[in-house]
Amino acid sequence: MYGLIGKMTAVAGQRDALTAILLDGIEAMPGCLSYVVARDPKDADAIWITEVWDSADSHRASLALPQVQAAIARARPLIAGFDSHVETEPVGGHGWAPAG
Amino acid sequence: MYGLIGKMTAVAGQRDALTAILLDGIEAMPGCLSYVVARDPKDADAIWITEVWDSADSHRASLALPQVQAAIARARPLIAGFDSHVETEPVGGHGWAPAG
Repeated sequence: MYGLIGKMTAVAGQRDALTAILLDGIEAMPGCLSYVVARDPKDADAIWITEVWDSADSHRASLALPQVQAAIARARPLIAGFDSHVETEPVGGHGWAPAG
Repeated sequence: MYGLIGKMTAVAGQRDALTAILLDGIEAMPGCLSYVVARDPKDADAIWITEVWDSADSHRASLALPQVQAAIARARPLIAGFDSHVETEPVGGHGWAPAG
């Protein structure tokens, strides 16, 4: 399995708009077992995204999906920066949906 | 909703044993929507845990559950340190189980 933990910073005042874009069209991503978009309560512009995929290949393929490409294009102007990006190997847990 | 993103370091050579403990008895934690234990592929002793709860209260209550207390006691000698601990406010996503 393949996991991602990332923190991004929205352009000031745009976190809600960016969050909405990040959550748009994420239901039909084959191999996506978990995808969480969260606010950082201590930083008004920060967003955390944590993901679990059945494989790195599934994640890479998702980046080519039309709805993801569209979301990336819409999101880009609202992103001020990427703060951290960690790749992980999920071992187990609770609450993952079966691959989409 | 309440989220946690944490990184801990296992005592050298104990990551697999610690991971097994962290995954033991996590199914029946009321309010736990997502719980992911993952290895860090770039650090042989590092473990990432990402969680989503329906509330901070549910998470706090889980720490008093017998199976969680037992797991904490078993895990403590295998933990070398806690590297990062971020509280988040999950907004949305995919693949979360309904509250347990």
